[in-house]
Amino acid sequence: METKQGTSLYYAVKEKLLEFIKSGKYKIGDQLPTESELCQTYDVSRTTIRLALQQLELEGHIQRVQGKGTFVSKPKIRESITRNIRTFVEQMKDLGISSQSKVLELVVVPADETLADTLNIEEKDPVIKLVRVRYADAEPLQYVTSYLPWRVAPGLINDDCTGSLFDLLRSKHGVVISRSLESIEPVLIDEAVSKLLEVPAGSPAFSLESLTYNEKDQPIEYSYGLVRGDRFKFTMERFEK
Amino acid sequence: METKQGTSLYYAVKEKLLEFIKSGKYKIGDQLPTESELCQTYDVSRTTIRLALQQLELEGHIQRVQGKGTFVSKPKIRESITRNIRTFVEQMKDLGISSQSKVLELVVVPADETLADTLNIEEKDPVIKLVRVRYADAEPLQYVTSYLPWRVAPGLINDDCTGSLFDLLRSKHGVVISRSLESIEPVLIDEAVSKLLEVPAGSPAFSLESLTYNEKDQPIEYSYGLVRGDRFKFTMERFEK
Repeated sequence: METKQGTSLYYAVKEKLLEFIKSGKYKIGDQLPTESELCQTYDVSRTTIRLALQQLELEGHIQRVQGKGTFVSKPKIRESITRNIRTFVEQMKDLGISSQSKVLELVVVPADETLADTLNIEEKDPVIKLVRVRYADAEPLQYVTSYLPWRVAPGLINDDCTGSLFDLLRSKHGVVISRSLESIEPVLIDEAVSKLLEVPAGSPAFSLESLTYNEKDQPIEYSYGLVRGDRFKFTMERFEK
Repeated sequence: METKQGTSLYYAVKEKLLEFIKSGKYKIGDQLPTESELCQTYDVSRTTIRLALQQLELEGHIQRVQGKGTFVSKPKIRESITRNIRTFVEQMKDLGISSQSKVLELVVVPADETLADTLNIEEKDPVIKLVRVRYADAEPLQYVTSYLPWRVAPGLINDDCTGSLFDLLRSKHGVVISRSLESIEPVLIDEAVSKLLEVPAGSPAFSLESLTYNEKDQPIEYSYGLVRGDRFKFTMERFEK
């Protein structure tokens, strides 16, 4: 196989296989050729093939099943970036995907300096901390920790938080959500979160930070989440000015 | 140190140090305590401290300088996601950052099946391939490969492509850019690209794919880029419907 400047041999093999997946030559659920078959086809070592497959698996394009072989994964969940706030439940519903949350932690904690600063409250003020794993079609997708000033929704601590948090805040606690500031960064999943999200440690993920304000421009929620990169991508459309 | 459900010890140490960085207790350029000092402060093993520092370094928050110590990095370049197409040169200019590109490859290649399909041309039709590393303030930030149908800008092959490609297409080749479809995924940087972007292999990065159309809705450019996750983040503002 020809290799280009700035690309290594395994990268070239990986790109070739990815091309076959994207073009539909290999379809969802299809079994890929065995490692030895791939070695012969591309005339490269087994190490090179393994590196290529490893990379494709980490990026979510294929799945290796012990003793059975390597299969093409279903496509990633695509979230279109819009100007509107949309809850996780809404997003999934639009995509025809069922969603649910498992609550790992729902407690009141005292605000430390950083949190007090972020939520515009005093240090040691009570803060509701909610830790959830969010599932899409019964598959873990997101690990998210939310912090809310306690006075925003004092009764939240006793609520059922397995649905949409924002819907609950609106319907039960009279919160008027106005805008949110969000940031997106690529990170690696550590060992602890890897178990919760059922992916290998070191897998690439999105880290999402968000700060949401009410109609009086007071911060009502700060959240920090990790989203599986093998199952999720953002898309957007941009226009000429 | 207290550890919470779903978090490991090194993750707790990492989050604590990150809090100090974000709150400004440790400022940009500040030297962090030594590994042994951190072991004592948090009463954990050297392995735990190393894992925490490794993670912070991969995510771009700190930099370890051989024989000198560990220092707080400058903040990431933040690109606000907007509805408007903005070139890399424009984005950097708005942030007061000087930008330039190094051209690694500028050639005409025959379209393979996937590329022909993407660019809506015939297989084997000539395609201009442009591979660049983009620099922000003289630091490599992005590795990007662009493909354009040859007939979009036949003379491009002889042009100086170290500035904005879109500006060049507009000003010299009469191309009218209309809209682009983009996608964002988290990936790991492989060894070959790691050398070009001057980061360790395995570092988290954004993979950006984009397909741009002219005013007749014909594809004029497909690009695939990798952006350093330690130096770049996306931000956005969303509003209630």
